[in-house]
Amino acid sequence: MPPLRIALAQVNPTVGDIEGNLALARSWIARSAQAGADLVVLPEMVLTGYPIEDLVYRRAVLEDNLAALHALAGETGETAVVVGYLDRDHDGLRNAAAFLHDGAVSARYYKHHLPNYGVFDEARYFARGTDFTVVPFRGHRIALTICEDLWQVGGPFAAARAGGADLVVCINGSPYERSKDDARLALVRRRAEEAGAVVAYCNMVGGQDELVFDGDSMVVAADGTLLARAPQFAEHLLMHDLGGGPSEIAEPLGDCAEVWGALVTGTRDYARKNSFRSVVLGLSGGIDSALTATIAADALGPDAVHTVAMPSVHSSSHSLSDAADLAARQGLHHTVVAIVPAVAAYHDMTAGSGGLTGLAAENLQARVRGTLLMALSNEHGHLVLTTGNKSELATGFSTLYGDTAGGWAVIKDVPKTLVWALARWRNAEATSGAAPPIPERSITKAPSAELAPGQLDEDRLPPYDVLDAILAAYVEDDRDRDDIVAAGFDAATVDRVIRLVDLAEHKRRQNPPGPKLSAKSFGRDRRLPITNRFRHS
Amino acid sequence: MPPLRIALAQVNPTVGDIEGNLALARSWIARSAQAGADLVVLPEMVLTGYPIEDLVYRRAVLEDNLAALHALAGETGETAVVVGYLDRDHDGLRNAAAFLHDGAVSARYYKHHLPNYGVFDEARYFARGTDFTVVPFRGHRIALTICEDLWQVGGPFAAARAGGADLVVCINGSPYERSKDDARLALVRRRAEEAGAVVAYCNMVGGQDELVFDGDSMVVAADGTLLARAPQFAEHLLMHDLGGGPSEIAEPLGDCAEVWGALVTGTRDYARKNSFRSVVLGLSGGIDSALTATIAADALGPDAVHTVAMPSVHSSSHSLSDAADLAARQGLHHTVVAIVPAVAAYHDMTAGSGGLTGLAAENLQARVRGTLLMALSNEHGHLVLTTGNKSELATGFSTLYGDTAGGWAVIKDVPKTLVWALARWRNAEATSGAAPPIPERSITKAPSAELAPGQLDEDRLPPYDVLDAILAAYVEDDRDRDDIVAAGFDAATVDRVIRLVDLAEHKRRQNPPGPKLSAKSFGRDRRLPITNRFRHS
Repeated sequence: MPPLRIALAQVNPTVGDIEGNLALARSWIARSAQAGADLVVLPEMVLTGYPIEDLVYRRAVLEDNLAALHALAGETGETAVVVGYLDRDHDGLRNAAAFLHDGAVSARYYKHHLPNYGVFDEARYFARGTDFTVVPFRGHRIALTICEDLWQVGGPFAAARAGGADLVVCINGSPYERSKDDARLALVRRRAEEAGAVVAYCNMVGGQDELVFDGDSMVVAADGTLLARAPQFAEHLLMHDLGGGPSEIAEPLGDCAEVWGALVTGTRDYARKNSFRSVVLGLSGGIDSALTATIAADALGPDAVHTVAMPSVHSSSHSLSDAADLAARQGLHHTVVAIVPAVAAYHDMTAGSGGLTGLAAENLQARVRGTLLMALSNEHGHLVLTTGNKSELATGFSTLYGDTAGGWAVIKDVPKTLVWALARWRNAEATSGAAPPIPERSITKAPSAELAPGQLDEDRLPPYDVLDAILAAYVEDDRDRDDIVAAGFDAATVDRVIRLVDLAEHKRRQNPPGPKLSAKSFGRDRRLPITNRFRHS
Repeated sequence: MPPLRIALAQVNPTVGDIEGNLALARSWIARSAQAGADLVVLPEMVLTGYPIEDLVYRRAVLEDNLAALHALAGETGETAVVVGYLDRDHDGLRNAAAFLHDGAVSARYYKHHLPNYGVFDEARYFARGTDFTVVPFRGHRIALTICEDLWQVGGPFAAARAGGADLVVCINGSPYERSKDDARLALVRRRAEEAGAVVAYCNMVGGQDELVFDGDSMVVAADGTLLARAPQFAEHLLMHDLGGGPSEIAEPLGDCAEVWGALVTGTRDYARKNSFRSVVLGLSGGIDSALTATIAADALGPDAVHTVAMPSVHSSSHSLSDAADLAARQGLHHTVVAIVPAVAAYHDMTAGSGGLTGLAAENLQARVRGTLLMALSNEHGHLVLTTGNKSELATGFSTLYGDTAGGWAVIKDVPKTLVWALARWRNAEATSGAAPPIPERSITKAPSAELAPGQLDEDRLPPYDVLDAILAAYVEDDRDRDDIVAAGFDAATVDRVIRLVDLAEHKRRQNPPGPKLSAKSFGRDRRLPITNRFRHS
């Protein structure tokens, strides 16, 4: 095999920032060339960012990205570049890859397999490619493929074998899902074997709204041997010499570390790419807000994190002290604002029309807190973080415009049982000598919304280990009520949980976005009607 | 042509209510049989409701709907029935039509053309049909088609001609768009000519989340002659004797009447199908809330409408009197709650951290009102209606968790200029002798949010006629900045409006649903990233 030095540029583009993405591509191409690369690979649609959704319909987006492509092409010399971009031909818009060399675009490839499930709507946007190209380069025959193509048996990878390719480049915008990296390596191996060729898999990193791209770029030999692998959640230049034996192979992260990486990356990029320098959130002394603050501090630095304890008449003393303890451990900006005067004002204002009782009085407290955080956001320019977990979002155990008021829902895809596991993991990760960032009592105390005297979550919901197991079956695996009951759960509990999930759809529709971790997050992954009278039992 | 009495049952199913939809089908089939029908036609996916989105993945939904289909089939005798339902075969899920006769399913058809643009995601759900059936019945040859099939040249309607069909039945879930009824008749005519056959077009009516189905069922002869047409926005049995000359032909509604029908139908069904008996909204004395209240009263009756005037220190005297006047004219339940005490409480609570100024102080007032309405909703079970129009939603001229807090956004797809037109139209429609429902001053006064002294909308936004024209070009027609400027608009104004629209995406994502009227409403029609650094100039 003739020598060929490949550089996979695992970079973090920004949707719509075509000028910035062009500069990013140029800088990584230059770095690669300095490192002696013969071939530089950049991710799927890196010039526009990904996914750009209905921005594809803006002619100016298409034109600016084509201008960027031709600028890059014009700058290439001996080092070839494979880059993802948006194209259009007589059949429509195309999710495309170009092979740039010697000052020109020497080959193009249009994605064959367009994902149209889960979060993906590519059949809405793109015409399906049917042509297949093998590019001769430095004694190699190089095939181009894009992302979903990798998931198809008998598709472009079979065509690569037929075309005599010895290297298949696959450029990706493949979002993170828990444990997807395990599936990904196995998949790349199968396709390498199908193609009878080396596969160079280049993925992007970074957050784009709800999606987090984890990188995990890799090179795999035709016999399935892993030759190189990049770390997750970091921009990285992965170099590999074809025919030169294994190079750098990063270890994949463990489950909690990987989830943490996704939460931190998603939060950092949502703030940064939307021009926020600081965040504000309410600290209740409980574990959800404690974990959210810790993720924010890891993402943006403690100086960017503003926390507010907002006690009511129902707040316990440890609520205030645990919140202050967390802020002190991490060096966050912490203040205390009692909500009692505003709550009293609403009760006075509505006394004439019968007053507020029960749930109305409970929700009022949450809404006073939400209004206060939004006022601080408007006054100081902070992004408001919400602190609700996936178990709450699923069951509607939250107050619209109260604890759900904010711009970014950090742990919206983290079930409560995983909230606790992450807190313990993060405390254990604390560098030796440093205090663990999260107070132990916030982890061990019984969860309570503290909106009424003596209230505990488990008065209204099943125990969280049971709840999360039912939710995983119903929401993530789309299993039917009868199946879940047959799996050994109490039928009345299953019916109650399903009913809560179905009735909370209107709330979820108004929740802020947050990072997707699971195979099915609440967001574009799961599209259910609000008006829905289907009853399962 | 042998005689054949057709009954098109333009009915209003409910998503997920399979038992209720079966009962609905039975009752209209019985009515049709009593009227001597030989063939009864029911709309697309009427047994499940439409669109059911990710509910298609619930096995129990599929099974219950198949059980309903077989129950219906078993009950058929001499009168044949065409009905839409959800099917599945080895290739996947199917958007299907069945021909029921003599106790059995005698033919099936799977939709060929699956819409996957705008609000539609059918490529996500369904496998595309390829087979085509012509059913011999009472001396006729009847072809089956479904909705989008009608929009394709050379598709199933060409196959109908090749198959010797003399009647093509087309069942629909075709949502309302302004002036779509004009396009629809022209389209049915073209397909009737292409098929060389009579086309019997049956659409549903009613609201399903953001979509409103307007009916407009019709029968068109092979030469394009309109033979029968049902009224819009009402359940209706449209009877036609094939070979018997024209029957009932309803006049299509004028533009304002049609929009009004969509707003009233969408609001009535969202409330009813989600089990709300009453609504509450804030009345500012301005035109947006006045129009919203009037639509709600037309939809649900005045006794179901609760209005609240919530004056602040910036409210003008005519705000209160115009609000009271509107409520009195229409017999709504009206109360006045001054928000001053709660606003003062927040200012006191935040005084220690620098207080609230400027935009923070403005938004605070809107959020105090939103919290108050939600408290009344929680206490009394009312659905909260928001009153923002499309021009506001487009430009982000609203306060999240303030005036956007609520469950149903009645006029979210009505631009401000159309708000005024609808108010004038509705006042002119008032029955003779009755006072017009909307006070003239609410229509004529200069719009103001009244969140700061002497504030007017036009201090911050271009005049509404200019703004709405730019928004129509940018949002509904997806025209580029340079095109819009070339059309004669001031470049700086265009840039400002586009920037406002782009920056408000995060707000729109958290807005409540509301009825779609335009070709591109803010909702599933328009899917843009929040994180989006594309700049147009």
